[in-house]
Amino acid sequence: MGISSTAAKACDFVLFGTKGDLARRKLLPSLYQLDKAQLLQDKTRIVGVAKDDFSREAFQELVKTALDTFVKEPLCDETVSRFLERCHYVGTNFTDADGYAAFHELLEPSHVMVNYFATPPAIFGDICRSLHEQNLIKPDTRVVLEKPIGSDLASSKVINDQVSAYFDESQVYRIDHYLGKETVQNLIALRFANSLFASKWDNRTIDHVQITVAEEVGIEGRWGYFDKAGQMRDMIQNHLLQVLTLVAMDPPVNLDADSIRDEKVKVLKSLRPINMDNVFENTVRGQYTAGFLRGSPVPGYLEEEGANTDSTTESFVALRVDIDNWRWAGVPFYLRSGKRMPFKSSEIVVYFKNPPHNLYRSSYRNLPPNKLTIRLQPHEGVEIQMMNKVPGLEQSTRLQTTKLDLSFSDTFKNERIADAYERLLLEAMLGNQALFVRRDEVEQAWTWVDGIINAWEMSNERPKPYPAGTWGPVASVALITKDGRSWDE
Amino acid sequence: MGISSTAAKACDFVLFGTKGDLARRKLLPSLYQLDKAQLLQDKTRIVGVAKDDFSREAFQELVKTALDTFVKEPLCDETVSRFLERCHYVGTNFTDADGYAAFHELLEPSHVMVNYFATPPAIFGDICRSLHEQNLIKPDTRVVLEKPIGSDLASSKVINDQVSAYFDESQVYRIDHYLGKETVQNLIALRFANSLFASKWDNRTIDHVQITVAEEVGIEGRWGYFDKAGQMRDMIQNHLLQVLTLVAMDPPVNLDADSIRDEKVKVLKSLRPINMDNVFENTVRGQYTAGFLRGSPVPGYLEEEGANTDSTTESFVALRVDIDNWRWAGVPFYLRSGKRMPFKSSEIVVYFKNPPHNLYRSSYRNLPPNKLTIRLQPHEGVEIQMMNKVPGLEQSTRLQTTKLDLSFSDTFKNERIADAYERLLLEAMLGNQALFVRRDEVEQAWTWVDGIINAWEMSNERPKPYPAGTWGPVASVALITKDGRSWDE
Repeated sequence: MGISSTAAKACDFVLFGTKGDLARRKLLPSLYQLDKAQLLQDKTRIVGVAKDDFSREAFQELVKTALDTFVKEPLCDETVSRFLERCHYVGTNFTDADGYAAFHELLEPSHVMVNYFATPPAIFGDICRSLHEQNLIKPDTRVVLEKPIGSDLASSKVINDQVSAYFDESQVYRIDHYLGKETVQNLIALRFANSLFASKWDNRTIDHVQITVAEEVGIEGRWGYFDKAGQMRDMIQNHLLQVLTLVAMDPPVNLDADSIRDEKVKVLKSLRPINMDNVFENTVRGQYTAGFLRGSPVPGYLEEEGANTDSTTESFVALRVDIDNWRWAGVPFYLRSGKRMPFKSSEIVVYFKNPPHNLYRSSYRNLPPNKLTIRLQPHEGVEIQMMNKVPGLEQSTRLQTTKLDLSFSDTFKNERIADAYERLLLEAMLGNQALFVRRDEVEQAWTWVDGIINAWEMSNERPKPYPAGTWGPVASVALITKDGRSWDE
Repeated sequence: MGISSTAAKACDFVLFGTKGDLARRKLLPSLYQLDKAQLLQDKTRIVGVAKDDFSREAFQELVKTALDTFVKEPLCDETVSRFLERCHYVGTNFTDADGYAAFHELLEPSHVMVNYFATPPAIFGDICRSLHEQNLIKPDTRVVLEKPIGSDLASSKVINDQVSAYFDESQVYRIDHYLGKETVQNLIALRFANSLFASKWDNRTIDHVQITVAEEVGIEGRWGYFDKAGQMRDMIQNHLLQVLTLVAMDPPVNLDADSIRDEKVKVLKSLRPINMDNVFENTVRGQYTAGFLRGSPVPGYLEEEGANTDSTTESFVALRVDIDNWRWAGVPFYLRSGKRMPFKSSEIVVYFKNPPHNLYRSSYRNLPPNKLTIRLQPHEGVEIQMMNKVPGLEQSTRLQTTKLDLSFSDTFKNERIADAYERLLLEAMLGNQALFVRRDEVEQAWTWVDGIINAWEMSNERPKPYPAGTWGPVASVALITKDGRSWDE
């Protein structure tokens, strides 16, 4: 393997919020994995930043504990000691620019400074200003922003403005960890390296598309945080819309970051607005009530620890999305995401149109359609549903839907499937923005999502209840069956 | 299961040549299987005909021995005794109409008489005439003809004329056992019940098609017979051209026998003639020399038992076939069939065109194409080759061809895969001609094949040698590589 020469520039990877959950669970373990895979430049360093007055040794201890706890495989001693050697620490209040003076001592001028903001977005601006006041921002300095970037268009603009006061868009890396998933990246190869799909990816051949992100978990002790957001802001606005854009975009000029993002924005701009006029036809929101999950009772959303029993926040959303452009006119995208579903499952299902004429109509009034399923998790893979003749001597041909299956873990059993964050951290250090969300994408997504949320608020309807451990309110079934279709099982 | 009511008419299945190889190896065992599967009408009888003066008991003994020897699974006693009860025998010289008088005694007037001619074609006419002279031919009487039906257009016309003097085309069932194979029947379902293929089965989306029927066997003691025919007459004229027509035909009006055969004939009429002008560009014929098969030495064609060492008969043929119609203009079909190939394998491979533009050109000058493989034997099944991203953190996306696989024996493990003859015998008894070859098909195929054979004869070139256990003469590789393509591995 080894890192390619163009990417060989050493980084000072500065991790703001290094003691937080994300840093310990995901970021530090991912950096360790990159180091193990020889993908960190030899001189690259990791600088943890938090407000505590820590020694370097105490920080190294914290890193070691994080690796012990959150790296799934046995640790490689050699990598661990190399990794800890890279680790440095700066203790400062993020909002106090004076505290940033320590960076002058620590940072290597020839290194690229990559700042990762694993902090609440409210202080992104303060960090940027402090870096600026200490003259730490150079043309090749980068910032990586964790979500959420705002809770609507207006608040996202505030945050983006605060950052862009000091950083050019080409220096800003907005994380959506779905873009780091192997299966999501494979989506591009699947679409553009396979003529079987490339040449028939439009409204002449595709009937509709379903995107489902079902979570088995509930609120997991963060009721207060989640209740302010809801499933629409927490999942649809980012992950599902990102996946939708990759499924729906026109072929990009090339695979460069901006060529891809140009196409994604075009899709977001083409989303048919949902507002008071059409919100009931095209959306269903739900809130889970007490139920059973894998046989055990679980509480309802309003009974969770810390819950406000008046909350009308949705834990489930189903949408019919129309894309008003030449490629997709008449092809609805059905999106669905919820908590406390029967099991965890993320998938894209592309339903092809039926053949123009049914030669088997005497036996089959409706032929089951061909479908392409892209399983994002678990059991990453690709599956094609086809019709085949069942062997046998019956007079009327008996057809059966059969699956041609490509499981990533079987097919690529010698390849480790990297965590999404490994890919994204590596890309940020290499300076490739393709897997990050551009400002106009975020804003376009919020514009569309705000319309729905406003309509919900104006309607004054409560979300529809659904028992934990089910696939959402019955209304979400009606949403798709009224179009003569049904959710993929 | 059970036979459907429309098919419940009892037959007298009269098997001319009942002591021959085909009858003992294939036909009697297949009839037994149909009986076992409850697909023979209760009163259906089997009447063996051969020239020996046999008793019914002696014939039943012969049948029992054939079942013992050639049925692969353990015999079912109950079926065997029911089956033997159905068996009757008529001893007569086929050309002696007087001998046919015995049928008057034996046949049940309410039964449909299905005559199966498992005899040399030279006496098809005699049998027909004898049946006629004895007034045995009624409107619902049928004849099933085994190949070869002639060795060129003229001789096939003679045979067909002899039969059609007494039988209407609707009473004639010409066997090509490839049409009885499950995988060949599935081809129709695959093409017309799957929009993924149905809507892109033409020269806009398909680059070319390969059809290979490779035999591992050599001459197997029938040198004299084979040497008069050669691989072109023995395999290409019938099996490969039949498969080609099913791959290439336009969608039929419906699945009725004549609707399908109308479309197949259209394909045969559209085959671009091969003659002296283009025979060297489009054909390669080969003859095997001594070589090794699975490690053991095997003799060459001219060294086989009974061989005439001057023979110029081909044991291998490769062809580039152009179909001059709207659907296939510019899409060559490459056909290949030979004896003493490295292993037995029959398959159809459809190569799709590459995407119109290669987004991965910096890493892959040529993307491997998508292909659909239909394996006729062994390991019947369907396979799609696609490109997927190999999981990993490399900067330039690494693509890999991967296979989505549908093995019939895995997928349909509870279904027995019937021998082709079971299907065909059943269809003949039910009176469905869809899987039989119509006269105009045979003649159209001979017209085209005659052109090639004539050109070969006029050219006076010997077939090109290839060692037994290889994929044919090197020239057969050149045949396809000169078009920038290569045989499927």
